[in-house]
Amino acid sequence: MPIDVCLSPALYPFYHHPHNTVVVVDIFRATSTLVAAFEAGARCIRPVATLEEAEAHQKKGWLAGAERQAKRCDFADFGNSPFDYTPHRVAHKNLVFTTTNGTQAIQAARAAAHLCIGAFVNLEAVANHCMQRKSPLVILCSGWENRVNLEDTFFCGALVERLNKQQARPLGDGAAMAVMLWQQAKSDWRNILNQAEHVQRLHANGCANDIAYCLSLNQSALVPIYSPTENKLTIQTLHEKE
Amino acid sequence: MPIDVCLSPALYPFYHHPHNTVVVVDIFRATSTLVAAFEAGARCIRPVATLEEAEAHQKKGWLAGAERQAKRCDFADFGNSPFDYTPHRVAHKNLVFTTTNGTQAIQAARAAAHLCIGAFVNLEAVANHCMQRKSPLVILCSGWENRVNLEDTFFCGALVERLNKQQARPLGDGAAMAVMLWQQAKSDWRNILNQAEHVQRLHANGCANDIAYCLSLNQSALVPIYSPTENKLTIQTLHEKE
Repeated sequence: MPIDVCLSPALYPFYHHPHNTVVVVDIFRATSTLVAAFEAGARCIRPVATLEEAEAHQKKGWLAGAERQAKRCDFADFGNSPFDYTPHRVAHKNLVFTTTNGTQAIQAARAAAHLCIGAFVNLEAVANHCMQRKSPLVILCSGWENRVNLEDTFFCGALVERLNKQQARPLGDGAAMAVMLWQQAKSDWRNILNQAEHVQRLHANGCANDIAYCLSLNQSALVPIYSPTENKLTIQTLHEKE
Repeated sequence: MPIDVCLSPALYPFYHHPHNTVVVVDIFRATSTLVAAFEAGARCIRPVATLEEAEAHQKKGWLAGAERQAKRCDFADFGNSPFDYTPHRVAHKNLVFTTTNGTQAIQAARAAAHLCIGAFVNLEAVANHCMQRKSPLVILCSGWENRVNLEDTFFCGALVERLNKQQARPLGDGAAMAVMLWQQAKSDWRNILNQAEHVQRLHANGCANDIAYCLSLNQSALVPIYSPTENKLTIQTLHEKE
């Protein structure tokens, strides 16, 4: 079964197949932060595309995480920093979540057969999860406002490299590019990312601590899974899902 | 002035700026073949998106090049092979041209301030042309049905590397990725491209000779320039254009 990498949510329609397993990645910061929120004990997280939806949920008693252009939205309980989501604040709670790019990518791929959340902080866990699925795999980068970015592409290369060690699968050109990039970058990838557009944007917004967390490997063994019928992410054991 | 790489025509709206200089690339085969047709003496070439437009022009006396899914269309005078466009057939002629990807990319970027055609076969010429333009530069890959491809991305890396040797310009993440890929691949790039999806597609359609031509460097000093008001490509000297 082939593996491909889709470098922007706007391209997902051209990579869609109804049998796809999709891993959505937004290293800075949505998918890293989603993993952190589940590590802190959140019960479920509803990813929504618009601020209006997030505010409507908040009025019904949900906690709301909302970010635009790297800043927390005024109405929101949390922004898009992983450090906002502490056990004290989110354990056993239902959250609604909207960000500039990551939640848009989830919505773009909601017709996939299976959709899960990946980041460097749960890289090994998501690799193990993918190995158990016998279907075409697409790793979907959230990018920045539909443009491609380095950090999501590096993650794709790291994930494809791990999957290929277990089992050689045909690679689409997008996956081949991501693996070549990762193989070139991996001995110095955090330094290379200092040149990335969004790292400079995060530094300008005082988010240096978030960068270090988002680029740390395997902080979590959790893989958030998306249910399109309920429009929510939860942590499930595989036998619950299948 | 920044340089960026747009990896798919479907992403061009997210890279558009009205002052952009855009280089459209479709290594296999549209932009390589356009350069070959001008080398053979074609006077002007009108890139159109649909087969209907190409056929309508043919009925008015234009020669028609038309390809879909790597095959020449039945009605057409030529397909998308550079070897179809001989001096005997095209010198001093007006042509209409439609292909699966390349002519779509030209249409996607037609609102750019300046649009020209690049390929490995005119790499140095297009690099020199870009160096003379003081505007944001976007190199637009035609891809395959809006998916990214290796060969167009390699070309972008080769072009950005040449431009950066002359003058360091800020690189968007797309351009940074293309340069990293090219730097990793360039000692063995033709062999690496044997794994590319479209090379396999071309071999299956008996186009091995086209591949060799499309991957040969600097066969031409011509840079086709697009006029959106006339919807045509021509060879112009700079003082005619500016």
